[in-house]
Amino acid sequence: MNYPNGHKRTIPASPSQNKGNHIFSNRGMTLEEDINVTNQYYLDLDKAVIHKKPTPVQIVNVHYPRRSAAVITEAYFKQASTTDYNGLYRGKYVDFEAKETKNKTSFPLANIHEHQIKHMESIVHHHGICFLIIRFTVHNETYYMPAEALFAHWYNKSKGGRKSIPYETVKDCSYLIPFHYHARVDYLSIIDRLYF
Amino acid sequence: MNYPNGHKRTIPASPSQNKGNHIFSNRGMTLEEDINVTNQYYLDLDKAVIHKKPTPVQIVNVHYPRRSAAVITEAYFKQASTTDYNGLYRGKYVDFEAKETKNKTSFPLANIHEHQIKHMESIVHHHGICFLIIRFTVHNETYYMPAEALFAHWYNKSKGGRKSIPYETVKDCSYLIPFHYHARVDYLSIIDRLYF
Repeated sequence: MNYPNGHKRTIPASPSQNKGNHIFSNRGMTLEEDINVTNQYYLDLDKAVIHKKPTPVQIVNVHYPRRSAAVITEAYFKQASTTDYNGLYRGKYVDFEAKETKNKTSFPLANIHEHQIKHMESIVHHHGICFLIIRFTVHNETYYMPAEALFAHWYNKSKGGRKSIPYETVKDCSYLIPFHYHARVDYLSIIDRLYF
Repeated sequence: MNYPNGHKRTIPASPSQNKGNHIFSNRGMTLEEDINVTNQYYLDLDKAVIHKKPTPVQIVNVHYPRRSAAVITEAYFKQASTTDYNGLYRGKYVDFEAKETKNKTSFPLANIHEHQIKHMESIVHHHGICFLIIRFTVHNETYYMPAEALFAHWYNKSKGGRKSIPYETVKDCSYLIPFHYHARVDYLSIIDRLYF
């Protein structure tokens, strides 16, 4: 893979931040919670406007009690037709999906749906910034995999190749996302390196 | 108001399309349905990637019956913290809210929430394309009001001014969105004129 900046080093964290990575990051927060905290921090700093989309739900029945809020009494989860996160950073459209795995040795591609890949292809085609955030919970590491790298693995799979991406390969074609106390998944630092 | 193109004419529709506007557009479809059809059309043509965000729901109880899909048995509507629509067009981040009113003479500002205005301000600040789509159902007209124009009315209201925008004022500071059979709310044609 060739990346815009021509190399793959992650952004060097300060020694204290590196230490922080081990001390603070494994407090039982899910990847989604960590990203939500990060997005709120970016928003508070007026750095970026990036939100998680609500979970898509098919509402079937709603009850309207007197003097209190409407209650949804029957609804079903729908499959998302896009990725979970999008927004705006430095004038650019940003779009990503986030997945964590307990698997030590590989990232299972079953985590990603065909229509999400199609969506990500459209985003790349229309010049948006698109990527996948992968967390290996066992290794306590979170990676930024550019959509362009993900596509290659996806198509190899669809041609009968591996159904997962080996951990070592994820390391090779992704960027380790630094952990900071507030920006717990500081993916904008990777975008800064790649696109600005 | 000064707009990038310096004048305010809407894009002239062909005579048949103009006719179509009266024949086809008032078929009882809501503004939301019309925009969804339009977005799907843009997507099918690979013109833009713009989606409505799911309705935000606070899920309280989920029942997992054997051999069938999980049923949400208690949930509540949450207030959206952003606008309803966003996406990507010609490399630009696009973000908008859509409201229809049955009012003949004005658009009530109570339709818009404070936090949505804050969100729209952030989008403009970060160089996204941001606007409000207003439909006057009685007049069968749909307008593109740039966020920058909306803000002025909002602040006048917060300083004790009018709680609604008169219909004539909407006409003055907005663009009439053309109707086409597939692109029923062809707002990209306005974006083309304003930004490209």
